[in-house]
Amino acid sequence: MINLKFYSILPDTMRKKFLIVALLLSSFVNIAAFAQAPADSLMIRKIYDEALSHGAGYTWLRYLSEEIGGRLSGSPQAAAAVEWSRQVMDSLGLDSVYLQQVMVPHWMRGKKEVGKIISAGHLATKEVGLCALGGSVATPKNGITAAVVEVQNFQELRSLGRNTVAGKIVFFNRPMDPTLINTFSAYAGAVNQRGAGVVEAAKLGAVAVIVRSMSLFSEDYAHTGGLRYAPDVREIPGAAISTNHADMLSSLLKREPDTRFFLEMHCRNLPEVISYNVIGELRGTTNPEEIIAIGGHLDSWDIGDGAHDDGAGCVQSIEVLRIFQQLKIKPKRTIRVVMFMNEENGLRGGLQYALKAKENQENHIVAIESDAGGFSPRGFGIDASDDKIRRIKEWKPLFLPYGIYQIGKGGGGADISPLRDEKIALIGLMPDSQRYFTLHHAETDTFDKVNKRELELGAAAMTSLVYLFSIHGL
Amino acid sequence: MINLKFYSILPDTMRKKFLIVALLLSSFVNIAAFAQAPADSLMIRKIYDEALSHGAGYTWLRYLSEEIGGRLSGSPQAAAAVEWSRQVMDSLGLDSVYLQQVMVPHWMRGKKEVGKIISAGHLATKEVGLCALGGSVATPKNGITAAVVEVQNFQELRSLGRNTVAGKIVFFNRPMDPTLINTFSAYAGAVNQRGAGVVEAAKLGAVAVIVRSMSLFSEDYAHTGGLRYAPDVREIPGAAISTNHADMLSSLLKREPDTRFFLEMHCRNLPEVISYNVIGELRGTTNPEEIIAIGGHLDSWDIGDGAHDDGAGCVQSIEVLRIFQQLKIKPKRTIRVVMFMNEENGLRGGLQYALKAKENQENHIVAIESDAGGFSPRGFGIDASDDKIRRIKEWKPLFLPYGIYQIGKGGGGADISPLRDEKIALIGLMPDSQRYFTLHHAETDTFDKVNKRELELGAAAMTSLVYLFSIHGL
Repeated sequence: MINLKFYSILPDTMRKKFLIVALLLSSFVNIAAFAQAPADSLMIRKIYDEALSHGAGYTWLRYLSEEIGGRLSGSPQAAAAVEWSRQVMDSLGLDSVYLQQVMVPHWMRGKKEVGKIISAGHLATKEVGLCALGGSVATPKNGITAAVVEVQNFQELRSLGRNTVAGKIVFFNRPMDPTLINTFSAYAGAVNQRGAGVVEAAKLGAVAVIVRSMSLFSEDYAHTGGLRYAPDVREIPGAAISTNHADMLSSLLKREPDTRFFLEMHCRNLPEVISYNVIGELRGTTNPEEIIAIGGHLDSWDIGDGAHDDGAGCVQSIEVLRIFQQLKIKPKRTIRVVMFMNEENGLRGGLQYALKAKENQENHIVAIESDAGGFSPRGFGIDASDDKIRRIKEWKPLFLPYGIYQIGKGGGGADISPLRDEKIALIGLMPDSQRYFTLHHAETDTFDKVNKRELELGAAAMTSLVYLFSIHGL
Repeated sequence: MINLKFYSILPDTMRKKFLIVALLLSSFVNIAAFAQAPADSLMIRKIYDEALSHGAGYTWLRYLSEEIGGRLSGSPQAAAAVEWSRQVMDSLGLDSVYLQQVMVPHWMRGKKEVGKIISAGHLATKEVGLCALGGSVATPKNGITAAVVEVQNFQELRSLGRNTVAGKIVFFNRPMDPTLINTFSAYAGAVNQRGAGVVEAAKLGAVAVIVRSMSLFSEDYAHTGGLRYAPDVREIPGAAISTNHADMLSSLLKREPDTRFFLEMHCRNLPEVISYNVIGELRGTTNPEEIIAIGGHLDSWDIGDGAHDDGAGCVQSIEVLRIFQQLKIKPKRTIRVVMFMNEENGLRGGLQYALKAKENQENHIVAIESDAGGFSPRGFGIDASDDKIRRIKEWKPLFLPYGIYQIGKGGGGADISPLRDEKIALIGLMPDSQRYFTLHHAETDTFDKVNKRELELGAAAMTSLVYLFSIHGL
């Protein structure tokens, strides 16, 4: 590819000229914005220049992913991540950096799980890509061997009834829908099998559950994720099986309905332990009582390095503060970066943060989360009143030159969701979603999957949005 | 990340409801589009469903990348790619599949190049990531050792003058600008060093040229690409050096200006050979004389597998035909898919195709190229009259649900550029550009860098656009 004018549609070439200012002005409708737009536009350009020329997030993320690694709540790695992020924020000369205590669940995977398909016809076994779902109980020490009942959904399961299901392993095999453009919609359409499958199966006397991994790709890796037990329903083991092996098992079951499955898991739920949200703050100069919270979650699943989920969101959030400091931007409103603990299997950090905010009668005007991977940003999803969404959308022309074109109704993110009330705007950074479910909750979520520029563009987008809120409020 | 409503901003959930039709209708202004929009919208949804559920491009690309591999013009691999693509198109039941003969340059890299930094102070040598630029002459058999003159651009080089430059190796070290959001703009701003550096340096008596690789990342891989010699200027060897080693050499030169460089290359320009464009055609039912050409280039550089550049564009183009056949869409206008030969070091395929089109007085109404990587698509760049661009932009609401938001003025692509006249619209698929220059023209351009869904979304976008042209013309 050598054609130089290929991408001339984009405004890079004229970025330091007044044309862009004129262009932006012409897009603004109200007078206040009209007066402010050129200054905002120039500052946003500075923010992007800084992020793309001197970004620190990629180096931070390498440390968090490769030196600390997977960091499930309650693990030594989670404690290391708390101390590491405290030190990183401490190095930025903020107004304050502190820990917020929170009790978290402590689930341990233990010895590597084993899953095997036992073909009745061939008297052969095939080991498969499998991992325990987070929060699951163990199997008996020597595992469980049982016949397999494959279903697509809970309705089909119930229609089979206790006589068919009791004593068997239930195999939930409904794939994510590949025709949905937004892969998070496909995830939403399949993930109830993982979260609630054990309860629905146990109600009918099943002895264990295996769930097709939440992935859109043909691969041998199992993807973990949380499950939930219900009071008064027997707690049975739940595991994820790779998409390739789910297909293999499904096809074998059609030929040999008496195919059995062997499952051995050594995971344990231990007593809760003390952990922390890590918080860094730049105090507002004129309206310090108005708080802009931004963050990601510091914990991750144990089988990968948590590079995209959610190391990326953590370092992007800290990068917001670094850029403010580097460019000597004094925010009118308080910016508070929060490394939330325990998003993956409890949300305790998010709940604790919201509880303390309420106790202290804090005024959060907006909360922004990055927790959808460190990929090329495409937009912001907003959960707020229509009027607030409309006002935020007025900033769209400022973001279009940077490939941010979707600003509108959407969700914020799990950690910030407990802050929800009628006044706050909850906002989620929306990166391109196509690659996320290749690595989400899997051992493939490693640093090498992160592209430096994509990570930095996300940090710059967040910084720009925070800048606008810090100047204009909401 | 477990928040399910995160991405609810996107219209996936309502895609089969009439809401979307209403939405699209409300976006259309003229009556013809008003009447046609629902049918177009439904067909585009079918196209995406087919591409994402049963796409063949990824499997084809695996073969082209891994079984055939790098396929520079004139190589046996290029011949294999011609025969392979002919067979693939032959399997689709098209109206015709044929080869179009073209003479192509035949440059061979020969034995692996060697590049070494020779530190004067330490009496030590350091081997670096280096490769010959395409078209370069060899060094003498035992290499060249010379002092190094580092410059940022041709102006600086000329200001140094012949006395400083003669007998030395000129080291062009101007980086791609990381602050440009569109990486193709950054490429455009740096690539003249690679293309014309040897001529500018030879004019002042330099013995060789090394050029900082066209990459935005810190890495040890060298990125090749074409250079051009000029008549009456001595042909000196030109090579690319990795960005990491360019930084190392630059920093050493500041401390030790008498640092030398050793360069050994065995490449050769051989006599031209016969090769082919490969063409597959679906004949239009009502306006067969109106031709819609689509394509990518079949040749690639030799050091990678040409997966993104431009295997992706090739299989996406063939996928357009497969989807038309699978969905039994009968185009009113003729669709012609062209696998262009020799884009990388000659453009002979594109030139030959345009020449024959003119000789045969063919009426090309539009030509569409995919040659910017198989990444998540973001838009189409159009090189056409303002009126035609305006009309094509009216289709934007049809593409927005699929993340295609940039439809406007831009370039088409190198291969189709010789077709340019006042009537045709030249269009380039514009994928996300952030990852492209990690792998462009390097040994890292391999199949594992391609994401199946991103590739398929590009194919679906192209198919949808071709569908609209095939129905509505331009």
